[in-house]
Amino acid sequence: MKGIYFDGKKAEYREDLPVPKRTDTESRIRILYAGVCSTDREVLKGYRPDFHGIMGHEFVGVVEESPDPSLTGKMVVGELNAGCGRCIYCRTGREKHCPERRVIGMDGKDGCFAEYMTLETHLLHRVPAGLDGKKALLTEPLAAALEIPAQVHIRPDVPVGIIGDGRLAYLIAGVLQLSGAKLTIFGKHEKKLEQFAPFGQTRLADGISVSGGNPDETFELVVEASGSPSGLELASSLVRRQGMIVLKSTYAGTAQVDMSRFVVNEITIKGSRCGPFEPALRLLEKGLVKLPPAEFYSLKDWREAFGSGAFKAGFAIG
Amino acid sequence: MKGIYFDGKKAEYREDLPVPKRTDTESRIRILYAGVCSTDREVLKGYRPDFHGIMGHEFVGVVEESPDPSLTGKMVVGELNAGCGRCIYCRTGREKHCPERRVIGMDGKDGCFAEYMTLETHLLHRVPAGLDGKKALLTEPLAAALEIPAQVHIRPDVPVGIIGDGRLAYLIAGVLQLSGAKLTIFGKHEKKLEQFAPFGQTRLADGISVSGGNPDETFELVVEASGSPSGLELASSLVRRQGMIVLKSTYAGTAQVDMSRFVVNEITIKGSRCGPFEPALRLLEKGLVKLPPAEFYSLKDWREAFGSGAFKAGFAIG
Repeated sequence: MKGIYFDGKKAEYREDLPVPKRTDTESRIRILYAGVCSTDREVLKGYRPDFHGIMGHEFVGVVEESPDPSLTGKMVVGELNAGCGRCIYCRTGREKHCPERRVIGMDGKDGCFAEYMTLETHLLHRVPAGLDGKKALLTEPLAAALEIPAQVHIRPDVPVGIIGDGRLAYLIAGVLQLSGAKLTIFGKHEKKLEQFAPFGQTRLADGISVSGGNPDETFELVVEASGSPSGLELASSLVRRQGMIVLKSTYAGTAQVDMSRFVVNEITIKGSRCGPFEPALRLLEKGLVKLPPAEFYSLKDWREAFGSGAFKAGFAIG
Repeated sequence: MKGIYFDGKKAEYREDLPVPKRTDTESRIRILYAGVCSTDREVLKGYRPDFHGIMGHEFVGVVEESPDPSLTGKMVVGELNAGCGRCIYCRTGREKHCPERRVIGMDGKDGCFAEYMTLETHLLHRVPAGLDGKKALLTEPLAAALEIPAQVHIRPDVPVGIIGDGRLAYLIAGVLQLSGAKLTIFGKHEKKLEQFAPFGQTRLADGISVSGGNPDETFELVVEASGSPSGLELASSLVRRQGMIVLKSTYAGTAQVDMSRFVVNEITIKGSRCGPFEPALRLLEKGLVKLPPAEFYSLKDWREAFGSGAFKAGFAIG
């Protein structure tokens, strides 16, 4: 079959990959669409040197074979993280944090940039009838945005700041504005920022003072989704004392952080990663979240897809 | 009057200080006991170079003059932070976070290492009848410990780790064990750690792996009260994924922190500072919190008091 294979150093398009065989607990899925995430680009940059296999973790597909006959022939999306089932995390509803987990397209498990993949059946979610497959492809990143209200009480009556003008920030803004809260989005790219206008105020982030400024212009909640280490510094200057920063950005290396400032100002910093799929599918079905514009490529044009400046780049496969 | 005066660089004992005059909203207090806090030692090391005045912020005293006649002649303790009364923080119940606040013994306001001091009357709390003044001196640090359950739901059924074996850690352990939670206290000083045995398990912190180890031996909540930058690293290795680190330590300078690790593991970091006085007075009155052993000195022996290795050093003044 066709697919994008990563050998630990570089990726290549291949047409000779074997169609995967499922285990007793897995389903085999024919991929319709797959989404390129910045994490995939990080893999190419060396984020996962131990990984050898097919890349990709955002997909929509059709179940071809499954231990659950009700799934056969149905359109599904699927979660990334397959836990061991035995550790403290798997036993307490935190499978995605299992230290022994396999992660599709990244760690110990082939991904979805291919014609077929297999996945543990309990990680699959049916796409509601009537929801278009290209829209359902946003389930995984939308779930990551929904992890924020899953973790934090979003009060409709306090100001919220969002740092970042990429795809994840776009979905986060789309979700958080549903609370009724007043949003301000800080970004570095004027053209991208314009697309956030329906969600709230937008501000170019250049030149924001880190020293604080007017306390009335601070935010009870700041979501840092810029993907850049400088985002934390900006978040620190924007957050109200006793307020909260939700961190969505991951990047290699450490940052110089003045932790005492967070103690004195009693700031809460909350790391936030993958989120719940079912609420994401409900919001998509209801059309309540504005979806970013997307571009689709064929698998052999993976370099163009990875290099795309579009909010959302993906593959149309099946 | 007698007092310990800080001139921006060094402290000295003086007997020629003027007895302070109160404003219309302030009360004048005759100091009975005053406590030495590590923050006072930080002031001597240069933490507050702009401060010129009488040091000290933990006290028990008797009100001599007050706009509230019901307070006159009564034993009181008092909060440190006097806000402007107008900003977003003062208007939303966060006076201690007012950017314009004066802080007794540290910022814009004379402290309590003297025979008399003045303080905004609304910051005073009456000591319950029958509570000994030396015990009431622990109100402020005990309130700082109580800020943790004021911020965070302390579940009795999950494991809690405490890093630190000093006075604040002692009071935190004393408060958190009241929840019924299983505590483990990590310290560097074997002799000090022994005194924590009534609260839970104790472990010498040397040689704790930062890489994780057995997930079953991690903690849903870790309180970092060591006062050392290395405490955060240990806390990061001890906290369970999706768990919380409460930071109590302040220190000068920045730390190298791998923030991505907190994102991936969805750790919450919560800064925690001064806390509520009234619950502290209730616990002291009921004798529910084990108090650390204390040593008292006269003001002229302030160098010995500051250098004391006792859990609690203070001044007996009035």
